[in-house]
Amino acid sequence: KREAKESYSNRGMTLEEDLNETNQFYLNRAIAVIHKKPTPVQIVNVDFPKRSAAVIREAYFKQSSTTDYNGVYKGKYIDFEAKETQSDTSFPLKNFHEHQISHMKMVIDHGGISFVILSAFGSVYLMEAAVLFEFWERKESGGRKSISKKEIEASSHLIPLGYQPRIDYIKVLEKLYFH
Amino acid sequence: KREAKESYSNRGMTLEEDLNETNQFYLNRAIAVIHKKPTPVQIVNVDFPKRSAAVIREAYFKQSSTTDYNGVYKGKYIDFEAKETQSDTSFPLKNFHEHQISHMKMVIDHGGISFVILSAFGSVYLMEAAVLFEFWERKESGGRKSISKKEIEASSHLIPLGYQPRIDYIKVLEKLYFH
Ligand SMILES: [Mg+2]
Ligand SMILES: [Mg+2]
Repeated sequence: KREAKESYSNRGMTLEEDLNETNQFYLNRAIAVIHKKPTPVQIVNVDFPKRSAAVIREAYFKQSSTTDYNGVYKGKYIDFEAKETQSDTSFPLKNFHEHQISHMKMVIDHGGISFVILSAFGSVYLMEAAVLFEFWERKESGGRKSISKKEIEASSHLIPLGYQPRIDYIKVLEKLYFH
Repeated sequence: KREAKESYSNRGMTLEEDLNETNQFYLNRAIAVIHKKPTPVQIVNVDFPKRSAAVIREAYFKQSSTTDYNGVYKGKYIDFEAKETQSDTSFPLKNFHEHQISHMKMVIDHGGISFVILSAFGSVYLMEAAVLFEFWERKESGGRKSISKKEIEASSHLIPLGYQPRIDYIKVLEKLYFH
């Protein structure tokens, strides 16, 4: 079965690359200051060769205790995580970690804006943190371990895709929180 | 000459360790959600041994394009950099990079709160970004390349030091922006 040309997942760019380009666009146009945090790495061994840059010779990937993206838009603290699935039918909740959920809860409690950007079913969705928490709690109390496509379509916001910016999530935030 | 017992620089902890402890205290008490960003690393080579964790075998330190700490306090975006000097007389501006200054300017333009925490002369100071910009511009236009001790004392805010939290910079922010 051939997918429609516009399907997001067919484009050969990763969600992270597209979000980095989008954030760079927001930065250049003075729309928002939002960055991806560096990948957390546990550094064990470093070489210091004479006359050249230090080389990390042994290091391990660490789990982050927060989400991957944060910054400021119109004075408000913005904080989000981006996740993709290849599944055609649902979004597995194992993509999220307990500590990311509790980080997002704290952000909300402190008056920040938190959400997830989901790449799934050929589209990109913005799901507000409060909505994610409901699906997470359903799982925690023994319910299903994923969010169905139908549920995502009903509870999330389609993000306009384009050339510049690629994933215009600020447009969704603007409607939800700033009008 | 023997320094007073209370001198901050004599305590054997790094500024970063003390700030991490402080941020953890703020997190535990639900005062603020502020984290240090991971050190940015350019990963070149990774081994994937069977049955054990991936090992980074070649990587390099990258310069960050932002400041080191950010988060949310009372709904506001908080963004800062921490720096120390061993000098007794002044704070060298070479501790800051051009891109950090422009990042801080963007944060201010977007309604965030930005500042630097300076460990110098046995004390810890909070200098608001707008004040730092003035000293930076003086340097850029051919003036002195450091901030004198007297200037820091006159233009910055002493941060209360203690056991818990160690460097209570939120107390200073509270007075400056939230009363
Ligand atoms: Mg992630
Ligand atoms: Mg730094």
